[in-house]
Amino acid sequence: MGNADYDEYPISSMNGEMRKKHPVEIPPPQSFFKSLKNTVKETLFPDDPLRQFKNQPPRRKFLLGLQYFFPIFEWGPRYTFDFFKSDLIAGITIASLAIPQGISYAKLANLPPILGLYSSFVPPLVYAVMGSSRDLAVGTVAVASLLIGSMLGDQVNPTENPTLYLHLALTATFFAGVFEAALGIFRLGFIVDFLSHATIVGFMGGAATVVILQQLKGILGLNHFTQSTDIISVLRSVFTQTHEIGELKKGLNPLSITNLSFGGAYLSTAIKTGIVTGVVSLAEGIAVGRSFAMYKNYNIDGNKEMIAFGPFSRSAVNFNAGCKTAVSNIVMALAVMVTLLVLTPLFHYTPLVVLSSIIVSAMFGLIDYKAAIHLWHVDKFDFLVCMSAYFGVVFASVEIGLVIAVALSLLRVLLFVARPRTLVLGNIPDSKIYRNIEQYPNTDTVEGVLILDLGAPIYFTNSSYLRERITRWIDDEEDKLKSSGETLQYVILDMGAVSNIDTSGISMLEETKKNLDRRDLKLVLANPGAEVMKKLNKSKFIETLGQEWIFLTVGEAVESCNYMLHSCKPKSGTDGSFSNNV
Amino acid sequence: MGNADYDEYPISSMNGEMRKKHPVEIPPPQSFFKSLKNTVKETLFPDDPLRQFKNQPPRRKFLLGLQYFFPIFEWGPRYTFDFFKSDLIAGITIASLAIPQGISYAKLANLPPILGLYSSFVPPLVYAVMGSSRDLAVGTVAVASLLIGSMLGDQVNPTENPTLYLHLALTATFFAGVFEAALGIFRLGFIVDFLSHATIVGFMGGAATVVILQQLKGILGLNHFTQSTDIISVLRSVFTQTHEIGELKKGLNPLSITNLSFGGAYLSTAIKTGIVTGVVSLAEGIAVGRSFAMYKNYNIDGNKEMIAFGPFSRSAVNFNAGCKTAVSNIVMALAVMVTLLVLTPLFHYTPLVVLSSIIVSAMFGLIDYKAAIHLWHVDKFDFLVCMSAYFGVVFASVEIGLVIAVALSLLRVLLFVARPRTLVLGNIPDSKIYRNIEQYPNTDTVEGVLILDLGAPIYFTNSSYLRERITRWIDDEEDKLKSSGETLQYVILDMGAVSNIDTSGISMLEETKKNLDRRDLKLVLANPGAEVMKKLNKSKFIETLGQEWIFLTVGEAVESCNYMLHSCKPKSGTDGSFSNNV
Repeated sequence: MGNADYDEYPISSMNGEMRKKHPVEIPPPQSFFKSLKNTVKETLFPDDPLRQFKNQPPRRKFLLGLQYFFPIFEWGPRYTFDFFKSDLIAGITIASLAIPQGISYAKLANLPPILGLYSSFVPPLVYAVMGSSRDLAVGTVAVASLLIGSMLGDQVNPTENPTLYLHLALTATFFAGVFEAALGIFRLGFIVDFLSHATIVGFMGGAATVVILQQLKGILGLNHFTQSTDIISVLRSVFTQTHEIGELKKGLNPLSITNLSFGGAYLSTAIKTGIVTGVVSLAEGIAVGRSFAMYKNYNIDGNKEMIAFGPFSRSAVNFNAGCKTAVSNIVMALAVMVTLLVLTPLFHYTPLVVLSSIIVSAMFGLIDYKAAIHLWHVDKFDFLVCMSAYFGVVFASVEIGLVIAVALSLLRVLLFVARPRTLVLGNIPDSKIYRNIEQYPNTDTVEGVLILDLGAPIYFTNSSYLRERITRWIDDEEDKLKSSGETLQYVILDMGAVSNIDTSGISMLEETKKNLDRRDLKLVLANPGAEVMKKLNKSKFIETLGQEWIFLTVGEAVESCNYMLHSCKPKSGTDGSFSNNV
Repeated sequence: MGNADYDEYPISSMNGEMRKKHPVEIPPPQSFFKSLKNTVKETLFPDDPLRQFKNQPPRRKFLLGLQYFFPIFEWGPRYTFDFFKSDLIAGITIASLAIPQGISYAKLANLPPILGLYSSFVPPLVYAVMGSSRDLAVGTVAVASLLIGSMLGDQVNPTENPTLYLHLALTATFFAGVFEAALGIFRLGFIVDFLSHATIVGFMGGAATVVILQQLKGILGLNHFTQSTDIISVLRSVFTQTHEIGELKKGLNPLSITNLSFGGAYLSTAIKTGIVTGVVSLAEGIAVGRSFAMYKNYNIDGNKEMIAFGPFSRSAVNFNAGCKTAVSNIVMALAVMVTLLVLTPLFHYTPLVVLSSIIVSAMFGLIDYKAAIHLWHVDKFDFLVCMSAYFGVVFASVEIGLVIAVALSLLRVLLFVARPRTLVLGNIPDSKIYRNIEQYPNTDTVEGVLILDLGAPIYFTNSSYLRERITRWIDDEEDKLKSSGETLQYVILDMGAVSNIDTSGISMLEETKKNLDRRDLKLVLANPGAEVMKKLNKSKFIETLGQEWIFLTVGEAVESCNYMLHSCKPKSGTDGSFSNNV
């Protein structure tokens, strides 16, 4: 064992020369197109959708392809009567929820109530054939309805100009669909990843709060309510008003394609509404689908979700009602169709108060205050993002809340990239391990050597900062040493976390080296990764620095520095802890 | 030595239990405000401007403060006659360059030539008192002039409406100044860091190309030239035109504050132009100032630069002419003033051809094709950014080129955050070191153990990706092992590069653990940092995982896995390489 360990460290031979046992490898050159292909694959196809097609005969490939695009072919052949019984019960259960919810959510979007029912009839059939989650119950979504109602209501008054408003709403939904499908086809599912969990918690809570306030209209029986969604306008409207009951038409809807309006002054509003609605619905839907996938151990494919469709809070009911496959969606669609054809007149008498109450009770479930408390405990910045989204939605508007929360989340990511945390490392006693001296206060510093861990890849966004920060660490260390009469000789940069570097980063290293040379200090690199070594080699920085000053581990670098300190520049007052290597 | 090494690794006592010598520490709780203060300090004050004020008596503090805001107080008292001689020569040298350049650059911005001279007269005096670089020669900048000419020229024709154009140009410059000062006062210098070196090389080259094309007007003696800056419009204009000589007025300029126009339809254009000009000039100026600072070993303070002023290509001349302090700027300002008062009539006869030639020769120096070749060799993506900026400026417009280049640069940073590179680690023979198997092809894999290096902090932007990627690594490994009849038992995540984690990231770890549990695999963490340990602790993930499954190094984690594999689940066919620990 002692032997094996001995091999790890630089060996000083009799004549005082030093050789390293573990050189740092420069990876073999890779063609530009191969590495480009790799990057594109990891960026756009992280789920490796063609994985299961590998090494399969052509007939099997065709079947797998069909199953990939239409999962119904996957579970269809294995479908049993037992599954159907479960799905029937689940389907009827969610239909009984879908009908009043559909009507209520249509009212949220200021649309004729019957449109809410149509949306619980056609989309589930599409999803049953193309969607990848077995639990998602597809239909109207509270947040999407609210977004449409709020963003379009700003531009067009739905009571004064109902036809234009309806056309705009349908156009916006059309664009939401086109946008979602485009994201899916171009494999841009990762855009949805930029809405963090904290953003969604805050945003949904804020939207739910606004909806509850809006429903004061129905519950208190008010007329002439405000279309604005901010809390001040709503509270002002509460203190004003007579009673009104939504009237429902009967029958199936003709195709609404002729109602899309692609011209006119409001097209950009419709597109904007469509995009915002599409992204938010997707983010919500994927999050919901994912949490159910957790329990049943299958994967949700974000990109397929987008092509097929979105999201829902009704999914929980579907799941609890024991659904087995997407057939529950078909059952629900049939139930809603029967309702549309036969039972609609009954809903004529559903009082607005009831609809409002349904909405309010559903909304309370969306205000996830426990999640907000959890965020506060674990991550203050996430809590800030969450609260910004919440108050942005409640006090300003849905879009403003969303923009603030996304901007804050991105700012944090950019700040991490712009201001990575550099750490000073120390030696963990009786080992060759070097760790952050703040986390491990019992570490020992190494005399004459400053060890810095650069905590992130070095890009143009942080190269200036890192240059300044390294200089400051050195200044601090020299100030500290001045009192004890020691001098700093080596600066070791631990590159373990530097997964990549760009040309600005290389310039930073070159300037740092010049700066250290001027101060009579020696720059040493430890543990640079493959990408970094490749670029440092191409830019000739390795030649400038000297290959012998690049080490595989911080431990080896320190050994060598100590060896040089004690054999080449003999000084008094050394602690001798590494003298067994001299 | 063998002893010291033995202490690093888990020790199995007689009764088969295991204890670790090096626990992973959870850092002591830190108050929210203390850590907030720290973050704000590193973000906004990375240069630690108050550093020199520490532990100083109040009188000294006042003097240092005065010197900080007005560096003239620092070098003023030490100023000698020798310095003055150098500065005098440098000042006259740059004045001889500043006068024709000022006139030329004013023409670039479609402004009366004399304005170019004014700008070489007042700003240098301000900079001499407040700026931090001793070499920067302040005056008009080619790129800023071009930006103003191009952005405003799109909206207002300078020949048809010269007064409005002049007012807008002055308003834009005013906003550029306000914006720069605001960035400096609010310590937002890091915004400039988002313009990478590659962006600036491409952008400057493109701008210079456009300027050279524009000067075909002067050199070929054309009239009625296009105001557009794209290559097609310019070439079309070249084939059309009589001669024209810029006329210069004499005397000093009255204060131009009354010429600012804050109302009217063009205010937003003026503001936009001002902000773009401000940022680009600053980025250029700081880059130039920094490279001179390299040679003379002092630091440029980005935030102070912004308060005091910007940039220049004339700085190189100043530096080469042997300037010692900013007094060279004062000398230049005086020389320009004399020119304005006395010599202007002489410049009346400077032919436009001469002005154009001055501009063209200066511009050729800005097309840094060698830097572009270097980018191609070292970093293909940086080359792409550079070329996008270049062709965007040349074929579309200055703003479009800038926007494309910044967007591409940011996209790369965001992609790094959204798609970090995960690596499989293997054991370097005869050591306890674990490194990337692609970089070190001679590493050995450890039977039954998959070791993954998560290459970046885990944030909401990459948590979905990482979950999918980890699953895919495990699938691949199990496929590989299937043929040899072995089974995977442990998945070790090396968290060395995970400098931080947010709540989405913690959820990812929780889901990964559930997923592994279902597949009968054990999740093991190695080397989590201070921030990560703190948050994993607060979110109870450490409890869920079990403190005993968190190790200080990958080596220790592998030792423990091997110990468990060989002592708790005895199997045949083990390689026995770690059996000395059992």
